[in-house]
Amino acid sequence: MPKIFKTNAEIATCGGKLLKLTHDSKETGTQMDVNIYLPKQYYDKSKKECHESKIPTLYYLSGLTCTPNNASEKAFWQLQADKYGFTVVFPDTSPRGGDEVPDDKNDWSFGKGAGFYLNATEPKYAANYRMYDYVHKELPSLLQQEFGSDGKLDFIKNKSITGHSMGGYGAISGFLKNYGAYKSCSAFAPICNPSVVGWGIKCFSNYLGSDNKAAWKQYDPCDLVKVVKSTNASDKVLIHVGTKDPFLNEHLRPELLLNASKGTTWEGKFDINLVDNFDHSYYFISTFVPEHAEFHAKHLGLL
Amino acid sequence: MPKIFKTNAEIATCGGKLLKLTHDSKETGTQMDVNIYLPKQYYDKSKKECHESKIPTLYYLSGLTCTPNNASEKAFWQLQADKYGFTVVFPDTSPRGGDEVPDDKNDWSFGKGAGFYLNATEPKYAANYRMYDYVHKELPSLLQQEFGSDGKLDFIKNKSITGHSMGGYGAISGFLKNYGAYKSCSAFAPICNPSVVGWGIKCFSNYLGSDNKAAWKQYDPCDLVKVVKSTNASDKVLIHVGTKDPFLNEHLRPELLLNASKGTTWEGKFDINLVDNFDHSYYFISTFVPEHAEFHAKHLGLL
Repeated sequence: MPKIFKTNAEIATCGGKLLKLTHDSKETGTQMDVNIYLPKQYYDKSKKECHESKIPTLYYLSGLTCTPNNASEKAFWQLQADKYGFTVVFPDTSPRGGDEVPDDKNDWSFGKGAGFYLNATEPKYAANYRMYDYVHKELPSLLQQEFGSDGKLDFIKNKSITGHSMGGYGAISGFLKNYGAYKSCSAFAPICNPSVVGWGIKCFSNYLGSDNKAAWKQYDPCDLVKVVKSTNASDKVLIHVGTKDPFLNEHLRPELLLNASKGTTWEGKFDINLVDNFDHSYYFISTFVPEHAEFHAKHLGLL
Repeated sequence: MPKIFKTNAEIATCGGKLLKLTHDSKETGTQMDVNIYLPKQYYDKSKKECHESKIPTLYYLSGLTCTPNNASEKAFWQLQADKYGFTVVFPDTSPRGGDEVPDDKNDWSFGKGAGFYLNATEPKYAANYRMYDYVHKELPSLLQQEFGSDGKLDFIKNKSITGHSMGGYGAISGFLKNYGAYKSCSAFAPICNPSVVGWGIKCFSNYLGSDNKAAWKQYDPCDLVKVVKSTNASDKVLIHVGTKDPFLNEHLRPELLLNASKGTTWEGKFDINLVDNFDHSYYFISTFVPEHAEFHAKHLGLL
């Protein structure tokens, strides 16, 4: 059977290995990069290969301009993944490639590096910008086929999701739209209400159509909380945002998500922590990764 | 009193702050960049300001091509600094600046980014390339003057040193040449015998003179172990090197340091750990930072 993934690098770090992979995506019609960290538990030969002990997965969605490498190098999930025993998957933030993939080279907040984790409907972008189906469906399925075949890794059934900035929006949006598919969701400095802020309006307009507000509502967390029912008493979305985040008031707007959830089944379930002095960088993310890791570990049955 | 350091950024991370600083150096005759991480203990207002509780310092010397930022972002010392309560100082790897500072723009392993932690004697480089006196004397003194003035931080008396690759050589060399000045020394993938390997020969030749072997011996750990007496029974230099380090056999050569120390007062005091599968990257460094942090914390009296 031909391999789905090409391994470009296999890097020993902490107790496990970081694999830098490339593969063809039917969704995006392009080659895609993805990094995965397999924790030390995966390499522990004494571990029994029974269904109950399969290693669960945390998906980390990166922010604007990032590749799978930024968080792999700077967020420092690896130590936590080893502590609790979960795989971490770092997808790319958009399709890549040459001029055949439409882009705006003058705008880092749209196009390549800014796929916004949705399925584009506008004709120009609809063929490639399908990051929603790619991240939530195709990628987990392909990873399961290739890396799950030995029965030790679970990329599909026992999984959680987190992300930063655009990826924080992507995590919350994907968690709500696929309610029940992820055991838990958290976010670092997420774009909470993309329909009303600059980055979101630009991407929603270009990918979904400026007058197609019905489509916008299908991705905006502030709309999704009104139509997706939280049926699990333990639902909680853990969020951290720094008070010195330069994008806090213009693009992130966590207070709008808090307001939107009022009177819905999600009221009180967004645990939004505004943390003094922190900015938007990986220095901020890495600081709160241990707390988010513990949160997900609990929901994944690891604690 | 005019400030010595200009603070270009003050970044909240973990429980403390990373300060990105610039200052004028008399040693190098240039402006220098340096990052320092002040741990959470520094910001703990309940901490008593008595001499005994001064926060000690770990100096981290980076490798070829690095600036103070690489390790600040990727080595992840901050969490460990908070755990034990020490400051981390990340100096630059050379003087910087325009054409007034001599360089070889076609060679990343010499000149800017490759100061080799020595005082150059060759006329072309002697005015600026004085990283030895800068790192071991001027910088600690300036930091103490400005940041130590409130009596909480100790950059001079209770300090340890570590480093990576060229910086690993710099740490060992500086520790031995200033025997007694540092409480402990460790290194990640150090260049152990610069006088006999490519990177070292090039830098020693250009900075010290190709026929000035007496000067080379003053910096090479394999020569220093023969003239510096270890008088402390607890002396131990902790070293990790990855078996998949691409520079292991050509430039690092830890076995030569082990051999050189035989029959000297340092015999058995280099704890060299060859670790399976690890490479030369920050993925390797960050993996062993917790072990090195604990090692230094013990020697700094924090455990």
